[in-house]
Amino acid sequence: MRLGLLYSGGKDSTLAALLCAEFYDVTLVTGSFGITDDWQHARDAAESVGFEHERLDLEREVAEEAVDRLVADGFPRNAIQHVHEHALEQLAASGFDAIADGTRRDDRVPTVSRAQAQSLEDRHDVDYIAPLSGFGRGAVDRLVEAELDVTIGPSEEIRRADYEAELRALLAEQRGTDAIEEVFPAHDQTYVTGVR
Amino acid sequence: MRLGLLYSGGKDSTLAALLCAEFYDVTLVTGSFGITDDWQHARDAAESVGFEHERLDLEREVAEEAVDRLVADGFPRNAIQHVHEHALEQLAASGFDAIADGTRRDDRVPTVSRAQAQSLEDRHDVDYIAPLSGFGRGAVDRLVEAELDVTIGPSEEIRRADYEAELRALLAEQRGTDAIEEVFPAHDQTYVTGVR
Repeated sequence: MRLGLLYSGGKDSTLAALLCAEFYDVTLVTGSFGITDDWQHARDAAESVGFEHERLDLEREVAEEAVDRLVADGFPRNAIQHVHEHALEQLAASGFDAIADGTRRDDRVPTVSRAQAQSLEDRHDVDYIAPLSGFGRGAVDRLVEAELDVTIGPSEEIRRADYEAELRALLAEQRGTDAIEEVFPAHDQTYVTGVR
Repeated sequence: MRLGLLYSGGKDSTLAALLCAEFYDVTLVTGSFGITDDWQHARDAAESVGFEHERLDLEREVAEEAVDRLVADGFPRNAIQHVHEHALEQLAASGFDAIADGTRRDDRVPTVSRAQAQSLEDRHDVDYIAPLSGFGRGAVDRLVEAELDVTIGPSEEIRRADYEAELRALLAEQRGTDAIEEVFPAHDQTYVTGVR
């Protein structure tokens, strides 16, 4: 069975890929609005862990909506959730037998409720799988330590391809670079460079 | 890392074991009140899929409480949940680095909430993992078809080792065999006989 997994090049989606590979023919899929080329970082990470990779078209209009939301809210949670739901819809419509993402049990965002999962499955005749949703933060940290080679650093320096990179770019284009710091709190990100 | 997985010999806990085996040194663990020898069916299933197996002592008092609940409720849901929570407590206290069970996204019982999971982890310094909690019914059915050899039949005939077998025996001992049909609706069970 062919499974498409939303992939950022980060530790969570990489662990999710390793779990799914037990049962599925996994393709790592990275959404891109076409605003920047950051999706290519995820392609490179996918290559370093030995998986097939594809780029997934996201609609520019959704990025605009997300940036409006970022500015209105002053924090990224709802904007990221909006983009993630759009990415899952696009992925569900792209012909895989199953789709997946790297959401974890203890994540605040993005989240996919059981009702949202069943709705995706029913409307697109696809299985939606959240392989890490039964893993807490501590378990994920220990698995990353045991299984992956990663680079860790501030989110403005780490080359990865979650939605944040393109939303930051669009926000800077519309509101100037100072707006980024107002909306995105400083935090560390990880980028996967290989499997141990 | 050593992981103990609550194991009945059924399809869900067997799939959970295959997933966990990607990252952990897995031991399949079957709870038993000492009422019947049904736990041995799970030991045989564990052998057929190539995993280590251990028996886990459950307290007779909890079985008595569960049977009282069965009789009072007239349905098994709360009794099964009570026993499952006890089994997780016993397993969490038995020295593994991580513990797990076969609960799925669409299960009504047993369920383990995020708060219950975090409480188990904090009190016992152990990771609790629900590897199938991100898989829906359809995905599990398709994986069973692809990955496992199973026997399917009515729950009174299938040799497996979920809590139901011992609760049925205790209920029959206390209330007669007719009481079983009043409490447990007829349903099919699966028993795993190998990996494909």
